[in-house]
Amino acid sequence: MNNYCIIMAGGIGSRFWPLSKDNFPKQFLDILGTGKSFIRSTYERFSPVIPDENFLVVTNKAYKHLVLEHLPMLKPDQVLCEPARRNTAPCIAYAAYHIQSRCKEANIVVTPADHLVTNEVEFQRIIRIGFDFLANNQNALMTIGIKPSRPETGYGYIQCGMQNAECRMAQSEVGLRSHSEFRIHNSEFSGVVKVERFKEKPDYETAVKFVQEGNYLWNSGIFLWTLDGIMQAFNQYLPDMIEVFEKGKNDFGTANEQAFIDAHFIESPNISIDYGVMEKSPNTYTIPADFGWSDIGTWGSLFTHAKKDENGNAKRGNVVSIDNKNTIINIEEGTEAVVEGLEDYLVAYRDHSLLVCKLRDEQQIKVWIEGLK
Amino acid sequence: MNNYCIIMAGGIGSRFWPLSKDNFPKQFLDILGTGKSFIRSTYERFSPVIPDENFLVVTNKAYKHLVLEHLPMLKPDQVLCEPARRNTAPCIAYAAYHIQSRCKEANIVVTPADHLVTNEVEFQRIIRIGFDFLANNQNALMTIGIKPSRPETGYGYIQCGMQNAECRMAQSEVGLRSHSEFRIHNSEFSGVVKVERFKEKPDYETAVKFVQEGNYLWNSGIFLWTLDGIMQAFNQYLPDMIEVFEKGKNDFGTANEQAFIDAHFIESPNISIDYGVMEKSPNTYTIPADFGWSDIGTWGSLFTHAKKDENGNAKRGNVVSIDNKNTIINIEEGTEAVVEGLEDYLVAYRDHSLLVCKLRDEQQIKVWIEGLK
Repeated sequence: MNNYCIIMAGGIGSRFWPLSKDNFPKQFLDILGTGKSFIRSTYERFSPVIPDENFLVVTNKAYKHLVLEHLPMLKPDQVLCEPARRNTAPCIAYAAYHIQSRCKEANIVVTPADHLVTNEVEFQRIIRIGFDFLANNQNALMTIGIKPSRPETGYGYIQCGMQNAECRMAQSEVGLRSHSEFRIHNSEFSGVVKVERFKEKPDYETAVKFVQEGNYLWNSGIFLWTLDGIMQAFNQYLPDMIEVFEKGKNDFGTANEQAFIDAHFIESPNISIDYGVMEKSPNTYTIPADFGWSDIGTWGSLFTHAKKDENGNAKRGNVVSIDNKNTIINIEEGTEAVVEGLEDYLVAYRDHSLLVCKLRDEQQIKVWIEGLK
Repeated sequence: MNNYCIIMAGGIGSRFWPLSKDNFPKQFLDILGTGKSFIRSTYERFSPVIPDENFLVVTNKAYKHLVLEHLPMLKPDQVLCEPARRNTAPCIAYAAYHIQSRCKEANIVVTPADHLVTNEVEFQRIIRIGFDFLANNQNALMTIGIKPSRPETGYGYIQCGMQNAECRMAQSEVGLRSHSEFRIHNSEFSGVVKVERFKEKPDYETAVKFVQEGNYLWNSGIFLWTLDGIMQAFNQYLPDMIEVFEKGKNDFGTANEQAFIDAHFIESPNISIDYGVMEKSPNTYTIPADFGWSDIGTWGSLFTHAKKDENGNAKRGNVVSIDNKNTIINIEEGTEAVVEGLEDYLVAYRDHSLLVCKLRDEQQIKVWIEGLK
């Protein structure tokens, strides 16, 4: 099998403070209470289509032990350690060079470590469609596009090329049901479609327009390409970055790899794969998908996916809840809580840190925690 | 010096959950942030009038190590261990028998371990008045009476005998300022006065009447008497209890004391010193006092005495407070908290337990915590 999976697991996820912290970022958490961390679920989601030895996790050095703890089936040399964060393009380049030392004909799927997918069977079907497409389209750079269910302003969008037959959606089937709830009957919208353009996170009005127009998808940040395809794109669009990695070309896959990375990785420009490659290449494709996806990027999105009690509270841990409504109460194992009289609040405790705040103010968490001694 | 001090430190103080718990009751806490636990402050308050070797702490076995940790100047045999809680009369009897084995001419002051006194100099003056009075009144059973500053319904009251000259208060000086705030100019009301009657915790209307009448004091639970005086009273009013202790008469102060207590203490009736002795004896006296006293029996009373920020919040620990008002935030050392958007709330964390509730509902805490697993 030439199919490889790169799991990007270097994030620190301060938005979920205090559950996620520098020393314990979101990908290692089981915020939803499924019994599995995000990174573990990510591995299991790909496991039916990727052999264990073809997984690579790119992470910060500080998290290597956590990765191996959560994914004990991986060998230590499958965990690639960045000495510093340099965004997704250098992260993917590092892994691509590593794969190149093992398999020149690799197909690669790249995934964040901390997303939610609820329908894994459908997910695997989509990934297989992607690998099949690559067999005949070696230079294709593919993104999984998520069929939008609401005018979300927190995601980037993918505009599909309307010239593509599969992308012709029955516009009449797109119905605006309310400001917050959309339903799209896009059964026609399937297979692989050409990307017209990638769009940054829109404002609300633009998001509404995107969803109504029907040929926009959420950018999931899951990519598929061949090793050759991404290397060609790197050479064409990010020559400065490639110059850095080429210096260590012969070190990848050897005992010198880590030393080279430690010495030179930070010389790479800090740039995302979307901005550095996808938005520039004419060879971009997307697979419209609907497998219950969320990036669980905010407490609000967590709340959406969490199981709730009869008063709309999402509780986790040994909690006595009295007269609360639409409130998240999430405390770590080994602790207990009595919480009374809150509505639309967030109460979280982990690792000696407590947060009590209004759910609608969660964007401020990053700022507030700077005030802690 | 024949002056002894019995510190009653057996309480479990579940009202301050999660700060106080079975394994760490209120007397060992520094809830007010003075840098000293209640029991330590209690010791220091009496220290100028009681030699170190004449302190006795009566507590539960489980807390002996905590007592010695907070009061390292005491020898282990100064910590008397009850095998079970049997209210204040048996607690005091145990200590009295122990003292009897060391000093037949003892004067004794008995105090709870978990009260607040802000004016220690005045406190010591009052205690000295008490000991002086005992010198000429060997059978007197004395209570410190606190001049009331509000119609508090949480305390028992002492009605002073009006026949006593010192008790004649200028009634006109008692002014009802508001439903919640009283000020009493009772400068005449001093020295030792005869107790007319002890009153149970009153309802609000009765408390208002008491405070307006001017000859009522709060019962502080601090007692003074001679060893002989309290022993006579025990014999007269609690013969059942005395029967139990007399069986071990010769064991007190010997290596057999603990074994005797372990075997027989629970045979004692469960009765308070107020109900069992003070309310029955004709020899009761009180010293009206005003030394900044509170039993800190509720979160509300703690709030009254705590230092507050400009928004009326009482914070303790590494706390970032945003848009809170009149809220207690009390977290243990080594933890941190971000708290936003609460008014009249209580947020407390200690020993793996979290409480978030409305201050006005604090009476329910005891009930709520029964729901924890």
